[in-house]
Amino acid sequence: MTGLVDLDGDADARRLAWVYLSRVVQGPCAPLSALIASVGVCEAARAVREHELPEPLRGPTAARRAVDSAAADLAAIARLGGRVITPDDPEWPAWRMLGLNQLDTDRDREAAVPLVLWARGPLSLASASERAVAVVGSRCSTGYGVQVAGEIACELAGRGWTIVSGAAFGIDAAAHRAALAVGGRTVAVLACGVDRPYPAQHDRLLAAIAETGLVVSEYPPGTPAQKHRFLARNRLIATLGDGVLVVEAGLRSGARNTVKWARRLGRPAMAVPGPVGSASSAGCHRMIREGEALLVTGAEDIVDEAGPLRLPVADDTTDPAAHLRGAEADIYATLPAVGSRLPRDLAQQSGLDLPTVRAVLVGLELSGLVGCDSDGWFRTRGRRPG
Amino acid sequence: MTGLVDLDGDADARRLAWVYLSRVVQGPCAPLSALIASVGVCEAARAVREHELPEPLRGPTAARRAVDSAAADLAAIARLGGRVITPDDPEWPAWRMLGLNQLDTDRDREAAVPLVLWARGPLSLASASERAVAVVGSRCSTGYGVQVAGEIACELAGRGWTIVSGAAFGIDAAAHRAALAVGGRTVAVLACGVDRPYPAQHDRLLAAIAETGLVVSEYPPGTPAQKHRFLARNRLIATLGDGVLVVEAGLRSGARNTVKWARRLGRPAMAVPGPVGSASSAGCHRMIREGEALLVTGAEDIVDEAGPLRLPVADDTTDPAAHLRGAEADIYATLPAVGSRLPRDLAQQSGLDLPTVRAVLVGLELSGLVGCDSDGWFRTRGRRPG
Repeated sequence: MTGLVDLDGDADARRLAWVYLSRVVQGPCAPLSALIASVGVCEAARAVREHELPEPLRGPTAARRAVDSAAADLAAIARLGGRVITPDDPEWPAWRMLGLNQLDTDRDREAAVPLVLWARGPLSLASASERAVAVVGSRCSTGYGVQVAGEIACELAGRGWTIVSGAAFGIDAAAHRAALAVGGRTVAVLACGVDRPYPAQHDRLLAAIAETGLVVSEYPPGTPAQKHRFLARNRLIATLGDGVLVVEAGLRSGARNTVKWARRLGRPAMAVPGPVGSASSAGCHRMIREGEALLVTGAEDIVDEAGPLRLPVADDTTDPAAHLRGAEADIYATLPAVGSRLPRDLAQQSGLDLPTVRAVLVGLELSGLVGCDSDGWFRTRGRRPG
Repeated sequence: MTGLVDLDGDADARRLAWVYLSRVVQGPCAPLSALIASVGVCEAARAVREHELPEPLRGPTAARRAVDSAAADLAAIARLGGRVITPDDPEWPAWRMLGLNQLDTDRDREAAVPLVLWARGPLSLASASERAVAVVGSRCSTGYGVQVAGEIACELAGRGWTIVSGAAFGIDAAAHRAALAVGGRTVAVLACGVDRPYPAQHDRLLAAIAETGLVVSEYPPGTPAQKHRFLARNRLIATLGDGVLVVEAGLRSGARNTVKWARRLGRPAMAVPGPVGSASSAGCHRMIREGEALLVTGAEDIVDEAGPLRLPVADDTTDPAAHLRGAEADIYATLPAVGSRLPRDLAQQSGLDLPTVRAVLVGLELSGLVGCDSDGWFRTRGRRPG
């Protein structure tokens, strides 16, 4: 859907349609994104309103389709000093969303691109997410974790990286505060409406972020924070960064969910180690040990992993796969620029048999062009669309 | 050489020959080991004595070949309450030495099996090294490192694992002491004669180890500690364990050298993380980050990595490679049970061309049967000779 200019309505009508649909489904909805991609946002809004819907969309739209509060919602966000960012807007970070676009939404309907983002703050979302690292971690952080998160976020923000996090207690707050302290850029992604300070004790922190940075959410104003929204929110945190850093995480930390999203999106996942006796580092150690996250010790390591050298701008002279021929070139071309594929899907798409696909993949892996993890095979040097 | 029974002399003559040669070359000497393997230890001793030697052995034997102090050395070690352990003795851990036997001594003449081990202490070396972990680390350890080394060594020793280390300040001493404290088994491997307390401040610690455990060295009594001997000593520490654990290591720590030996020998190398600001953990973090060592957080992880499940006793019904056919079976058979080989060596030995060898190796890697590191390819499930 992203980047595609629909011709099914004027700008105002389209904005009202996006906002109406955002209020109706409240969060990611893969079947609705598919409908919009197919018929345009205005026509999709009409279909929802009139209940002319394919079966998978009837449930998710039933509760709120009858009330169109789009105009009131736009007025409300304006009163908050905020705005709605839709895929039609220049600040929509379309290339960031590509990874989400390519995930398998049959398995997971929340793996969809957000319909809109509700935002407060002067930063342009497109430029804020141009060079960004998500810094997440335990709410029950230790002094060690707060200090390390602060040092790393200070240094990255000072070098022009945006710090993306979730405004939670502990590591999230330490990362945001460090970015603010050095006059750097920071984006808070909420699991509730941007009018709701969550947690309440971070009222001032969120106000400070909204003053120079950006507070965003895919949920319309007034939406309360609920458990399932945090998981969907984590996917947005991972989406908006070049990589995800976990500073402290207990064994059951939500940070592991954010790391999982990073891996599905083909972004580097990184974790900071700590004392082995600390329960707040146990999740980091497990992720490193099990190959889910790379061990990093400071900003330098993170720039190495997530920096532009890892995500070169594509052009014909630097295409790392330009020398490939035959089955290697075919398989490489079948892999998405961002995200993973399973060998059987690659076999189906390329028309090659599964043993050949597997053999070619390991050859490409030896050349450093592809890698694999539990979600499948991916290009190691994803091409960032211009 | 190990395990092979020579028939070139009676037991006393052979023991005197081993001891004479140990004194002559003072440390590992691959050309001498090769000569012994070819002509037997008594004949090798005669050839050294009479200077009837191939060129590579003339230099290493020139300084001390004229004086045969073997009988005096045996008397001296007996006065110390010690003994010499030769490859002819039942307590020689022949299967432990197999890894060393298979290293490329052209590249590195110190990669040889020791001629003899000088020993003090009641433990049998063969049984002490049956289930053993080498615990090494920084001499400039922190309180954190000493505590973690102590906890892990206590727990492993309490479970019947022997703690092998180098009796140095810091982590080594903490590991030895913890094993002694729980009445466990510990082996100190020295880079000087076993009559020399090194470091001098560890006089009592070494005496305590010699009382219930074992202090060993490949250097004859009286040999002073010198820099190159520490590197050769590290290979013995790695040789005597099922794996090497590094608890703290600075960026220039000698522990990295021990880890390198573990990897060459096909043994798991493990490292404990720590606070990222600690210089004493920087070497551990780098080894984990660069894939040289596995992150472990406690005794449980170490048993998982180095325990008997990783080194199953071979029998026909559990041979992991029993199902292999054709080139896969050939290449797998060409890989040594312990240690690594480069693809070009495998190509030469198997008669297959290099691209085939490489393709087969990656296939075997996907099946989990082989792995590779900077030293080459190795069997992931080494068979422990009976």
